Amino acid sequence: MATSNAPKSPEFTPQTNNGLQLVDLGIDTQQEHFVFLKADSPIVVSEGFETLTRIRVHYQNRTIVATLSVIQGDLIAEGQVGLSENACKTLKVKSGAVLRLSHLPPLSSLGLVRSKINGNKLSEGDFMQIINDIEKGRYSGLHIASFITACYGDNLDIEEMTSLTKSMVATGAKLDWGKPIVVDKHCVGGLPGNRTTPIVVALVAAAGLTIPKTSSRAITSPAGTADTMETMAPVNLTLDQIREVIEKEGGCISWGSAAGLSPVDERIIKVERALDIDSEGQMIASILSKKVAVGSTHVVVDIPVGPTAKVRTEEKAQRLKYKLNVIGNAIGLEVKVLITDGTQPIGQGIGPALEARDVLAVLQNKPRAPKDLRTKSTLLAGTIFEAAGICVVGKGQLMAEDMLSGGKAWDKFKAICQAQGGMKEPTKAPYQHQVLAPYPGIISSIDNRKLAKVAKLAGAPYDAAAGIEIFEKIGAHVEQGGTLFTIHSESSGELKYALKYVNSDPNIITIS
Amino acid sequence: MATSNAPKSPEFTPQTNNGLQLVDLGIDTQQEHFVFLKADSPIVVSEGFETLTRIRVHYQNRTIVATLSVIQGDLIAEGQVGLSENACKTLKVKSGAVLRLSHLPPLSSLGLVRSKINGNKLSEGDFMQIINDIEKGRYSGLHIASFITACYGDNLDIEEMTSLTKSMVATGAKLDWGKPIVVDKHCVGGLPGNRTTPIVVALVAAAGLTIPKTSSRAITSPAGTADTMETMAPVNLTLDQIREVIEKEGGCISWGSAAGLSPVDERIIKVERALDIDSEGQMIASILSKKVAVGSTHVVVDIPVGPTAKVRTEEKAQRLKYKLNVIGNAIGLEVKVLITDGTQPIGQGIGPALEARDVLAVLQNKPRAPKDLRTKSTLLAGTIFEAAGICVVGKGQLMAEDMLSGGKAWDKFKAICQAQGGMKEPTKAPYQHQVLAPYPGIISSIDNRKLAKVAKLAGAPYDAAAGIEIFEKIGAHVEQGGTLFTIHSESSGELKYALKYVNSDPNIITIS
Repeated sequence: MATSNAPKSPEFTPQTNNGLQLVDLGIDTQQEHFVFLKADSPIVVSEGFETLTRIRVHYQNRTIVATLSVIQGDLIAEGQVGLSENACKTLKVKSGAVLRLSHLPPLSSLGLVRSKINGNKLSEGDFMQIINDIEKGRYSGLHIASFITACYGDNLDIEEMTSLTKSMVATGAKLDWGKPIVVDKHCVGGLPGNRTTPIVVALVAAAGLTIPKTSSRAITSPAGTADTMETMAPVNLTLDQIREVIEKEGGCISWGSAAGLSPVDERIIKVERALDIDSEGQMIASILSKKVAVGSTHVVVDIPVGPTAKVRTEEKAQRLKYKLNVIGNAIGLEVKVLITDGTQPIGQGIGPALEARDVLAVLQNKPRAPKDLRTKSTLLAGTIFEAAGICVVGKGQLMAEDMLSGGKAWDKFKAICQAQGGMKEPTKAPYQHQVLAPYPGIISSIDNRKLAKVAKLAGAPYDAAAGIEIFEKIGAHVEQGGTLFTIHSESSGELKYALKYVNSDPNIITIS
Repeated sequence: MATSNAPKSPEFTPQTNNGLQLVDLGIDTQQEHFVFLKADSPIVVSEGFETLTRIRVHYQNRTIVATLSVIQGDLIAEGQVGLSENACKTLKVKSGAVLRLSHLPPLSSLGLVRSKINGNKLSEGDFMQIINDIEKGRYSGLHIASFITACYGDNLDIEEMTSLTKSMVATGAKLDWGKPIVVDKHCVGGLPGNRTTPIVVALVAAAGLTIPKTSSRAITSPAGTADTMETMAPVNLTLDQIREVIEKEGGCISWGSAAGLSPVDERIIKVERALDIDSEGQMIASILSKKVAVGSTHVVVDIPVGPTAKVRTEEKAQRLKYKLNVIGNAIGLEVKVLITDGTQPIGQGIGPALEARDVLAVLQNKPRAPKDLRTKSTLLAGTIFEAAGICVVGKGQLMAEDMLSGGKAWDKFKAICQAQGGMKEPTKAPYQHQVLAPYPGIISSIDNRKLAKVAKLAGAPYDAAAGIEIFEKIGAHVEQGGTLFTIHSESSGELKYALKYVNSDPNIITIS
């Protein structure tokens, strides 16, 4: 421990400050840039570098910060340097380019993170500095993990959450649609099958409003909205493509990451997922800043509450609602929060294609269309109508119901799919297996998480047609040998795999 | 955010659970293991893996946990898998071995880390679980960063620091010398030139005591004890070599990492350095657990205090002293703390070889030997004598002084160097430059950190002979044009580089 903290000099010694030739290694390290150097190269030896050192990499007038990984053996030759895939993209360089390296000066914003860890309150300017350094790629994953940890739980008060949100807004993009009202919706998640977005977007766009909806893919769930939508139309829209679709149809349902509107948010979320930490302050900043980035002015947020949903108690939902309203207000966003029933799945399908079939059934007014999905979608769309002032308060859901029944939402949905690149039919899985009730009784509870797990074991979301269909919900009477749910799978192996889990756990659906 | 937290299944689907052949890429990722897979391989596609996913890798009956990095292009072929250098070593595999992969079940100890972040107190059992998971390689760097952040500042009380220390002790090695008393010393650091260890070890071993001293290399300082010692004798001793040297001579001065006694501690320290976070609890656990690992029973800890040292106030030093005593006691270690003057460097040399020359001058009783280094070394050795009970209290330093003057320490030092692989002469730098006083006056302060920076710019510690020599200390009168310090460098470029910094900052040595 006999060390001093003398700052590193900004430049290398003159002897080692020569150009190095880039070789393409094809290594993906995601948002954290990596630079690869030969272990016995003069620059590594004379600068005393080791793996994990942070270094600046220069090409022409562009600079990135990268984490060093030292290479033994022949992957990299003397005088060469490797960069991770994203680093090449960011620096706009290809194999053969000559790069220069320099030391990274100490980051003063890390002192602010330490101050937060010590329990001090950070100002808006402090958060701006931190988020700006993250945006510039100056934080390694370790630094971001430390920042997230410092902001976890009750460590941020509402003023700090507001500052964090404002700085996320300030560093991100901000689309401008030249309209006074641009609407949006968001669900905090955790409820399988809750695929209202395609229906809500179709309704809202059909009503003449602008709704540039970006959605995520599944990370730990059997399907994200982007996965479900992708079984019906392309979702990897660039910013220009989103603009085209919105100008033509007023609404879109695209995969948010493809447009790259909120790189800081994506980086933070990746680390949060790795840590399995879900900080309320970060979540609010993430939701609201993304809405500002796409140019929204009015947002309806759905918070499903239930013992196996993401938000587990009414009290927690109310606290979250309060914060979303206050912080939304501070950044000029009208936020309307709906606290909804999260005790059981919505719709019948769980998994990309199966959820898409529910969506299509509702849009097409089919008799088999799940009522809960229909009702929830018209409630959300109606709330948006009221927030946007295109109908009187209390009449929104009725207006949405009429538009749905009259086929306007279905027409608009087809047009949006066409504008996104063409509509297609969700696929069907070749393997199916019915899980039966072992004895008769009333369904008293459904475990969202365990049901999601069955769908994932069956192959969702990577096998788009895989998942489950559940027909009976809480309160329904089932006979002995009646179908509780059907497992869909694209291979017999995965089907067996899902069944093995179902047979091992009797508490997925409780009958009493 | 429409995700659920359904746990991943422990095994892959049967289709993708086949063996993959190992290729050696030579990529060093230090203690965090990495596994490399082709982006379009069936396992990546069907399991939906992305970079940063944590995966278990199996070979025969051995298993490690590794972080995934996805490879585009031809570095890895279909059916192949890559592992980082340390991962290969830990799994004991070579190119061509057939490996199996499986999902990592969720780590329950991460819940304890979240609980700590939320401000709850952790028990000894909790810390045991966390440290055990880190030892087994189950934490990524991100997880460790989060754990360190949670334990930072005042977040751990003394009971928790004790629990942390105990769990570090429990997971590490513990050497047994078959003796009732084994002594050790430690300095919390931050003071350039403070190279007492070689002298203290020689004195203590010459007195017949056992002192298996392990030291660190420089990270941000111009020299660590291991760097300085290496200019005189080999220091990369394995555990067996340490045993041989101790059995023969009673003392050694080796590089701690080479013996691999405290892998958890080394991993935590690496992340702490990357974060530039120095948690008191972690530091105490690190110091004391390492002493237990080498089998010490009595430890003298040197805490230099000064405005540019690591510990900046007497009050902080007293707090640290109290904790070291209480926690040492709890783990059966007798800890004696000395709070010393840290206002200016000790000795004349700063840099590996220059510090070694000071050490040799003291051991050889040369007239030019720095008095402060001599006095501090005999104080530390004398304190150890008293703690070990081989002399009456109050007479330790005198005893050490006698042994030093009589040449016993010098004889023992030569014998230790011989036992470690042979003694050699520290080298001299070909380029030297004297930095002169711009006007006459009294030296009123010396900035340890800036002085260390000059030594580093001159090439230390990687150029062993580089660094500085400082002849006058605080209180000395200097003439205009008198020498303040001499810069030593192995190349003219580095010398210029160091001089450029010296000329840019007039406050390295203050004359008033």
